[in-house]
Amino acid sequence: MNTALTVSKEEALALRYGADAIPAAGPWNDHIALLLSHRSVRGYRPDAPPDGTLETLIAAAQSAATSSNMQTWSVVSVTDPAVKAEFARIAGGQKHIEQCPIFLVFLADLSRNERLARANGTELEVLPYIETFLIGAIDAGLAAQNAVVAAEAIGLSTVYIGALRNDAARVGELLALPPGVAGVFGLCVGYAAPGVTNQVKPRLSQAAVLHHGTYDSTREAAHVAAYDEKLSAFSGRFEMAQTTWTGRVLNRMGKLKGLAGREKLGGVLRAMGFPLR
Amino acid sequence: MNTALTVSKEEALALRYGADAIPAAGPWNDHIALLLSHRSVRGYRPDAPPDGTLETLIAAAQSAATSSNMQTWSVVSVTDPAVKAEFARIAGGQKHIEQCPIFLVFLADLSRNERLARANGTELEVLPYIETFLIGAIDAGLAAQNAVVAAEAIGLSTVYIGALRNDAARVGELLALPPGVAGVFGLCVGYAAPGVTNQVKPRLSQAAVLHHGTYDSTREAAHVAAYDEKLSAFSGRFEMAQTTWTGRVLNRMGKLKGLAGREKLGGVLRAMGFPLR
Repeated sequence: MNTALTVSKEEALALRYGADAIPAAGPWNDHIALLLSHRSVRGYRPDAPPDGTLETLIAAAQSAATSSNMQTWSVVSVTDPAVKAEFARIAGGQKHIEQCPIFLVFLADLSRNERLARANGTELEVLPYIETFLIGAIDAGLAAQNAVVAAEAIGLSTVYIGALRNDAARVGELLALPPGVAGVFGLCVGYAAPGVTNQVKPRLSQAAVLHHGTYDSTREAAHVAAYDEKLSAFSGRFEMAQTTWTGRVLNRMGKLKGLAGREKLGGVLRAMGFPLR
Repeated sequence: MNTALTVSKEEALALRYGADAIPAAGPWNDHIALLLSHRSVRGYRPDAPPDGTLETLIAAAQSAATSSNMQTWSVVSVTDPAVKAEFARIAGGQKHIEQCPIFLVFLADLSRNERLARANGTELEVLPYIETFLIGAIDAGLAAQNAVVAAEAIGLSTVYIGALRNDAARVGELLALPPGVAGVFGLCVGYAAPGVTNQVKPRLSQAAVLHHGTYDSTREAAHVAAYDEKLSAFSGRFEMAQTTWTGRVLNRMGKLKGLAGREKLGGVLRAMGFPLR
């Protein structure tokens, strides 16, 4: 099913953190090995997965927690090649959106609850608040992550497409979204193409991310320096020019152009029916 | 490990959707059965889980995708009973926060990347935008959901605590969060107490949530009516007074008091260093 499950606990942790930064993890089993084996994949074979795969993934997604059972998310499955090509364009030329057999757009959806209220002759006072949009976005995130785990459990690969937010208004038009619904991100699902970079990417040391009792960044600089070295070596081995984490973060976050249109997201969401008060 | 894994595919889908609304799911295995078996638990035994459980959960969390590998989230593990009691109060009296042996607060964290830039004598222009806060919140959500799956894989139970956002400023004080960091939600982890309601909660029909090609709500009212009946029967069997989904949604979302302070979240986040432009 997933060859990563044959990797030992120590190997899995070393792939994720580097051999010099293995956390003192305890319980371990195949479920956890599957989670540790995640890697995002940006190239797909056209082969369709078995019948019912989409429904299995959505059953997993709907099984995730949802705030107060409000279920403020929905998902659109997109197969039309022309629409997928347009999404690829919005996302800055991500060809894997056109390649993957299953492309999902996860939505923050307050409109269903709003229709419910209208059908009952009332209104939902909480809708205009940023809190309620956030609930929809987080609900969508928890659901999507369960879909990702389910996909990887049956040998499929995935990659999130946050870059759909480069033009959330156009995504809304393409999917005929009513007011109060917005695409939060896309998700490619399919079989990884041969030769596609497909390695477990190292992350920051646990000590840089996990705090005990209160937030404490006093030793962070050392962890970041170690990680810079690790990610640079990883890039050199598997991907492209050697780049440190620092270099990548400054490149992606330093200049406004890194947002590729997403600097307008607040205004776009307001126009789509989320006042974000 | 998890008794739910002995449940068949058909039974698992019937528990989640009702026997009359089973989706045409395809691939199935123990990983997917685990995801389908999720239920939120609001009562815990005090027993500590095995050594290294926290580190296992965080390794799973860090293995989730993170937008452009920016890793804009952190987590605080809280064990101080006085602090947990204060969180329980903020969350409107949720005693399980005091009971659970592991209580985590997941954070949207732009401050680490900001420190990185400052150490390199520069600034991150993308920080003030709502898009960048959203990336932190979604990163935290994907990470937390992996932690939830890992916890349930080793026989632990969980419940998300969105109600920490009732007073995000006080949460920030208690955790000594610097500007650019905010608690997105809490997560209780522990062994379910005997007798605690612990049943798989039915969700809306897949047909109400999954759209094909474009968003289409034309048949939604019938799905909601069927779900109202289902959730009302479920409540009567396992929880409390029979309440339809419609009744619950109107109660939680109809009046501003349902936000319990979260109507101020936008202003609070701005004061915590997220301009949300």
